[in-house]
Amino acid sequence: MDALDVDDLVAGVLAGNRRAVARAISLVEDGRTELEDLSAGIYARTGRAATVGLTGAPGVGKSTLAAGLVTKARSAGIRVAVLAVDPTSPYTGGALLGDRVRMQEHATDPDVFIRSMATRGHLGGMALAAPEAVRILDAAGYQLVMVETVGVGQAEVEVAAATDTAVVVMAPGLGDAVQMAKAGILEVADVFVVNKHDREGAGELVRELRQMLHLGAARPWDPPIAQTVATTREGVDALWDAIQAHGTWAVETGARDAKRRARLLAEVESLAAERFREAATAVLERDPHLAGEVADRRTDPYRAAAELVRRSRADR
Amino acid sequence: MDALDVDDLVAGVLAGNRRAVARAISLVEDGRTELEDLSAGIYARTGRAATVGLTGAPGVGKSTLAAGLVTKARSAGIRVAVLAVDPTSPYTGGALLGDRVRMQEHATDPDVFIRSMATRGHLGGMALAAPEAVRILDAAGYQLVMVETVGVGQAEVEVAAATDTAVVVMAPGLGDAVQMAKAGILEVADVFVVNKHDREGAGELVRELRQMLHLGAARPWDPPIAQTVATTREGVDALWDAIQAHGTWAVETGARDAKRRARLLAEVESLAAERFREAATAVLERDPHLAGEVADRRTDPYRAAAELVRRSRADR
Repeated sequence: MDALDVDDLVAGVLAGNRRAVARAISLVEDGRTELEDLSAGIYARTGRAATVGLTGAPGVGKSTLAAGLVTKARSAGIRVAVLAVDPTSPYTGGALLGDRVRMQEHATDPDVFIRSMATRGHLGGMALAAPEAVRILDAAGYQLVMVETVGVGQAEVEVAAATDTAVVVMAPGLGDAVQMAKAGILEVADVFVVNKHDREGAGELVRELRQMLHLGAARPWDPPIAQTVATTREGVDALWDAIQAHGTWAVETGARDAKRRARLLAEVESLAAERFREAATAVLERDPHLAGEVADRRTDPYRAAAELVRRSRADR
Repeated sequence: MDALDVDDLVAGVLAGNRRAVARAISLVEDGRTELEDLSAGIYARTGRAATVGLTGAPGVGKSTLAAGLVTKARSAGIRVAVLAVDPTSPYTGGALLGDRVRMQEHATDPDVFIRSMATRGHLGGMALAAPEAVRILDAAGYQLVMVETVGVGQAEVEVAAATDTAVVVMAPGLGDAVQMAKAGILEVADVFVVNKHDREGAGELVRELRQMLHLGAARPWDPPIAQTVATTREGVDALWDAIQAHGTWAVETGARDAKRRARLLAEVESLAAERFREAATAVLERDPHLAGEVADRRTDPYRAAAELVRRSRADR
């Protein structure tokens, strides 16, 4: 399978072949044009997996919690995939070695798939790459797909918000609830976890978080706060139950389908905007005059953008 | 100035009127259509300010460092603005109270402007809102504009990378150098700071950081690592000097102008893509059929995006 045959790749993904799945996710990482045919080939077979996002500051214990949740899923007979989305760096090459070590207990289980994904080549970054990779794992028959993000910022929060159940992980001493609120993370959380619950300041963090949550308007789902010590697996059962409870609620009320539909439309809009951005880049490259006008401050960016829209629309 | 007169606003900004500057930044926050005229009115008067980005995990001491740098700037007779970019939350209302307290010593100085900016209404989020707000401060005559981001993720790294000198702040115990590398932050840093240098683990963090930096390919500018205790102002002089040294190097080698030109073009492309996204949204709203096709999995997102591009181009 060295020359890329997309039909073979689609067949491999749909059959749950691990090498095909890995190869397909590499296509997403690199932003290859074959993605469109791959997407067309698998799309009808997606929408079956439950998706869970795990987000939180570095060092809160997301990967250890993910390993615990994988164990719970496997004991329930559920095939599970973990996707660690990593806006990668040449210094690490996208290999989250520490995370892989923490996942080692699952390394030989054929029904567990673990993958770090960099998004260097993908236009639109991880916000567009992650949903496509999730669909590949979904189409390959993983019933639960967990998406772990590295970093806590606007883009990472969006990736977590694009899953069925967004889990926000905190730990005492690593940024307080107010800091999390600043990152816009409270609104998207369906389940909170205060990990390292045996450490000083954990009780205070839980109280602070409860207060913040009650400041906002009442929401149809009141996010529970699970308290865990991921390294000893304490509280992981309760966290699993909280995730399941949110999933059941979301399916029964129709909230899940409404959220999925809204995020699919947003994705289509973003993909269209990215295609258009490529067209705009091509126009600018062919005609450096407009670029010079902006650089020399004869035209401001908004007026230049309007002109670029006009020219790119005409450019077919 | 209750009804919005953009000409008055432009004149006020160019005259350095604080109320006009505050009002103009509010326009950016809300993504108001008047932005285009404002941008056109001030653009010729921008490009004079030096810009410095401050990014790092919550709790590393960015705001205290910023306060120290403001003091240094003022003692050199430089007018300075600090913009804290905050993907805001209804829970905090975008008010970074703690940060404002830390900046209190400068509150009455007419040559210091401090502002938290939320980016809720701005299409394209903080990556497009921040440069416009920086231009307003630049046009108002602030000679140094510091941009502080909250959160460490892909979008925040992009905002920092869009300044002349990107300063990355770390502290022992708050995510190690490997974690920062994961967020893609090492590549964009022009100056590193290890703050809270009196704490355990600081020396190790500096060593670890040096190692990571030497793993990558040699770069034309070798980022120095400043060591500070922001609360006592220890090391802030050396940090200020490191920032100045980078600025001088970048001006002399032409690296600054090349970076500014590249980011202006990227901004124009993004603005064009966002305008197009609005057109695409309008097409989808007028014709819910395409949305239904995707939701019902008869058309995959890439094919739907291609169709949307076709229709939006025709839609004038």
